[in-house]
Amino acid sequence: MRERRYSSTSPDRLAAALFDVAAESGLENASVREVAKRAGVSIGAVQHHFSTKDDMFAFALRKFVDELLSRLAAVQEDEAPSRALFAALSQLLPLDDARSREAHVITAFAVRAATSPTLAEIRRKTLFTIRTGISAVLIGIGTPEAETRAALLLATVDGLALDAIGSPALYPPEYLQHVLETQIRLTLTGTDAHRSEIELAS
Amino acid sequence: MRERRYSSTSPDRLAAALFDVAAESGLENASVREVAKRAGVSIGAVQHHFSTKDDMFAFALRKFVDELLSRLAAVQEDEAPSRALFAALSQLLPLDDARSREAHVITAFAVRAATSPTLAEIRRKTLFTIRTGISAVLIGIGTPEAETRAALLLATVDGLALDAIGSPALYPPEYLQHVLETQIRLTLTGTDAHRSEIELAS
Repeated sequence: MRERRYSSTSPDRLAAALFDVAAESGLENASVREVAKRAGVSIGAVQHHFSTKDDMFAFALRKFVDELLSRLAAVQEDEAPSRALFAALSQLLPLDDARSREAHVITAFAVRAATSPTLAEIRRKTLFTIRTGISAVLIGIGTPEAETRAALLLATVDGLALDAIGSPALYPPEYLQHVLETQIRLTLTGTDAHRSEIELAS
Repeated sequence: MRERRYSSTSPDRLAAALFDVAAESGLENASVREVAKRAGVSIGAVQHHFSTKDDMFAFALRKFVDELLSRLAAVQEDEAPSRALFAALSQLLPLDDARSREAHVITAFAVRAATSPTLAEIRRKTLFTIRTGISAVLIGIGTPEAETRAALLLATVDGLALDAIGSPALYPPEYLQHVLETQIRLTLTGTDAHRSEIELAS
């Protein structure tokens, strides 16, 4: 880890290094120095791409969110709506090591948004995009109060992720899947498709 | 703010100073130095009570959680269950300035729990206590899947708080109250008392 390459690096590589540092030791430790060290480059190489730590954070969050939204959008639309919702939203739960790392980093950015207008704007757009996507599915199957229930479904997943990252023993993966299925079922209460889709794939 | 008192201070006063720093500029800025400055004491006075920053964090989180759990427990038990749940859980939502500050600090500690076993243990006990309390209410009125729905209700509130602290414009107080009422109503689906209590007080 003491090796330093003074050759050029890319913003994407630095964002990946920031993600690794934040996932392993917390976003509060993702300083320019630590990110440079993790990427194997000089501090100057980081500063070449990002004039401030805030710039680096904003770039990393945008890249992370873009990848996440692409994955959510890639969920098969020909699935039954309840299965599509489960497939998409389970991307946001810490169901394995990779998603636990992601959940840790994204919740850390969500908290940081409370004190950073730049991060808050990225977060606001992300929440709005995901809520709109969930709403569209719910409206498509005649769910009552679709927009409110979409916000609830997203909040449930965000809250489960927040609760689970610090208390994995209270929220093992099978349990998280079970409670997400339950929330989807409650969300679809009163929906046209309710009866035929009440059972989710295991 | 440049005044420093070298007289003795109390752990409670330091915890209050830590809370203020974390609420205003983020938990990552709640260093021993900043907490001392906010409390108007020397760094040595902080170190007299807390040998490490982790000790200081753990004490502050325990104190904060104890106060929060006391407030939740003080909710009138003779209220209708849906109103009691609303009264208790709305304590956890950023519905005014005081609760916005609390929501910011408690979510920051929740994320920090992912990298701190001491904070994780405090968080685990807190979640377990609140979930058990919600479960007891739900079991008392014959709610199906009471424990799962209790975990969901808590996760929804935690997620709404997380989503709202960085995006207050997307989650104004009236909207947060409305979505909490909706989640409580969905939670009580199939409950004995469902019909008589479907309406919550405004």
